[in-house]
Amino acid sequence: MTILSIVEAVVTPVAFPDPPLLNSAGVHQPWALRTIVELRTGDGLIGLGETYGDAPHLALVRRAADALVGLDAFDLAAVRRAVSLAIGYADLPDRHGLIGPSSATKTLLKVLSPFEVAAIDLQARAVERPVCDVLGGRVRERVPFSAYLFYKWAGHPGAEPDEWGAALDPDGLVAQADTMIKKYGFRSIKVKGGVLPPDAEVDAILALRQAFPEHPLRLDPNCAWSVATSRRVAERMSGILEYLEDPTPGIPGMAEVAASAQMPLATNMCVVEFADIPEAFARGAVGVVLADHHYWGGLRACADLARICHTWGVGVSMHSNSHLGISLAAMTHLGSTLPNLTYAADTHTPWQGCVDVVTAPLSIVDGEVTVPDGPGLGVELDRDALARLHENYVRCGIRERDDTAYMRTVHPDFVKRRPRW
Amino acid sequence: MTILSIVEAVVTPVAFPDPPLLNSAGVHQPWALRTIVELRTGDGLIGLGETYGDAPHLALVRRAADALVGLDAFDLAAVRRAVSLAIGYADLPDRHGLIGPSSATKTLLKVLSPFEVAAIDLQARAVERPVCDVLGGRVRERVPFSAYLFYKWAGHPGAEPDEWGAALDPDGLVAQADTMIKKYGFRSIKVKGGVLPPDAEVDAILALRQAFPEHPLRLDPNCAWSVATSRRVAERMSGILEYLEDPTPGIPGMAEVAASAQMPLATNMCVVEFADIPEAFARGAVGVVLADHHYWGGLRACADLARICHTWGVGVSMHSNSHLGISLAAMTHLGSTLPNLTYAADTHTPWQGCVDVVTAPLSIVDGEVTVPDGPGLGVELDRDALARLHENYVRCGIRERDDTAYMRTVHPDFVKRRPRW
Repeated sequence: MTILSIVEAVVTPVAFPDPPLLNSAGVHQPWALRTIVELRTGDGLIGLGETYGDAPHLALVRRAADALVGLDAFDLAAVRRAVSLAIGYADLPDRHGLIGPSSATKTLLKVLSPFEVAAIDLQARAVERPVCDVLGGRVRERVPFSAYLFYKWAGHPGAEPDEWGAALDPDGLVAQADTMIKKYGFRSIKVKGGVLPPDAEVDAILALRQAFPEHPLRLDPNCAWSVATSRRVAERMSGILEYLEDPTPGIPGMAEVAASAQMPLATNMCVVEFADIPEAFARGAVGVVLADHHYWGGLRACADLARICHTWGVGVSMHSNSHLGISLAAMTHLGSTLPNLTYAADTHTPWQGCVDVVTAPLSIVDGEVTVPDGPGLGVELDRDALARLHENYVRCGIRERDDTAYMRTVHPDFVKRRPRW
Repeated sequence: MTILSIVEAVVTPVAFPDPPLLNSAGVHQPWALRTIVELRTGDGLIGLGETYGDAPHLALVRRAADALVGLDAFDLAAVRRAVSLAIGYADLPDRHGLIGPSSATKTLLKVLSPFEVAAIDLQARAVERPVCDVLGGRVRERVPFSAYLFYKWAGHPGAEPDEWGAALDPDGLVAQADTMIKKYGFRSIKVKGGVLPPDAEVDAILALRQAFPEHPLRLDPNCAWSVATSRRVAERMSGILEYLEDPTPGIPGMAEVAASAQMPLATNMCVVEFADIPEAFARGAVGVVLADHHYWGGLRACADLARICHTWGVGVSMHSNSHLGISLAAMTHLGSTLPNLTYAADTHTPWQGCVDVVTAPLSIVDGEVTVPDGPGLGVELDRDALARLHENYVRCGIRERDDTAYMRTVHPDFVKRRPRW
């Protein structure tokens, strides 16, 4: 009997440089936080997971990690029970608010996720198979990702411009797309909107359409628009957008927009847990759900979500926050197993440059990541890099992501409003 | 890298004695048919599966089996592709008609199922873990089953009465329940109805309620009733039945009955594939879905079904046809992993007596089957028994289950009608 007895669960917060990417909540701080999770077995196997780095979340992840020692990584049900017992009914407010009101269930699923990934990684390593085989086998060898464009400042306040420079108008976004597509070969484009007034963002979409006539385009204003604005703007982009993501808050509002919009509405803000699905689907509020194993509760949960979407004829893509190479590998394995990954997935990978915690990050070629054939996730920790990124964390002073507060340091009158227009 | 290269896929049809159990389609023939599937690897591992034995199905299972040689049992996606390619768009009529009109999709899923189970069995054996661990870990150690009562003749025409004797009225069913519960300790009771006029079956339910005041009761008339009859009969059984299963055909009819019935309606006839779910749930047609890995497409598909049911607040149980010990083991592993197995599962095990193809069949104690800790499914083929049961198959002359034709040999005027009353 193969026992994957967990002898140590190591939790390491890290920080890495992040460009000043703009969104409806504010702007990315100079450092993005993540937490790296390692589950170590007596046989010397190490399973990897990656999750958010905000301090209250990190505290729960640590508490959960301590509860896993002695468990068997083959017994995911026991892992889940242990995490649940360890954190109780903790209900962490989500300051960024991207997945709606907080709840004990959402908190549990976010804390569980890196351990589920790490446990599955261990299971796969034990048989020297890629994680996708533990998940049911890949249906594609390469997983498509999209170019994820952001309005951005040239650099952080007081710092030199970064390699990407400013993007605050249509020309800026087109130039950004050009650079990103030349480098990574992306075959679809997503724009993070909700930053400029809606018509200015539509102008950018129209400019991108002209510059990249063959690339499917998407726009995600993160609920910055009212229903009326959303309907009007959707009308202007008929026949141009592959999908419009979260134009307005809430299922009822999304349903109103969906009723008149020509393109499907995508979401990672109004359908963020299983409990949201029945009402959203019954109202026809969404046509695409963006899965994210970091908050749906792991890889298996996202596969379940994809099956549900397939059953109801709803499309599937994947959501991304700023992340490192463990998450990219996890997304790639998951994406390779989903028959109905109907849209290229999001990733922030280009924004992280060459910084990573793994020795050989998976690379994006022709807009796709090839599923690694090595055991487990197919990536290994770079101990030196992990130490450096942890040192960043210790020194950077940021303990919780707060795009709004950071924006206020430059624009003191900035307020987060959803909808804003 | 652990490779589970399939070097041989062995398909063996078997037959075993079946008592004259009555149902709305007719009566069980003297022999029940099944097909035993073995996937053998180069390392000498054997993965087991069990499926229907009807000749047209068997032919497709054989064709699929041939296509699996050379594949890797870790790659379930490849197994599925191979089965799909091997049988093409074959669309087998289902003479028994228990899962609605036939389709190419349903046919594929039925043919795929034993191979999915056998492949997962191999995966589990490779790491010497129970199948439940490959499915995500057990949430319970023991899976509850219910006493599955049938109206029946004393014996097959021309034969001696069997050990169970006749059950054609309330007293007969109560006696049968008594015997079965004494022997297996079942803590819930299901009655296969649709045999006698509805009020006679209600009388039996009332007699069972009196004799077994603490046992949850269920009645399954297999769509023998009209909507009006169903509503009236459901009313008579308010507060008595745990659930009423498939009183009437079709989602619209079930929805009409559900609208007035006090108890939830269960089904394995109107929700039998993923495509049925959205309409059935939207109409509130069913409150419990009976999963069955033999036609939903395997163990993983049933776990997905359970997740969907949980998301929509619909209960889950498991359906059973006449089966042997491989299927019982598969159901037990699956059932142990489903957080929302809200009702004891069905099984025909008591009707098969001690006949089996495995060396040490799992046993039902206190109405439950304990999940075996051994590798894989936890059961091993008994080669002598397999040979004997195959010999039965060769000699019995039955090549397709046909309860209606068999009933006509005794009652020439019998016709299968759904609804009948």
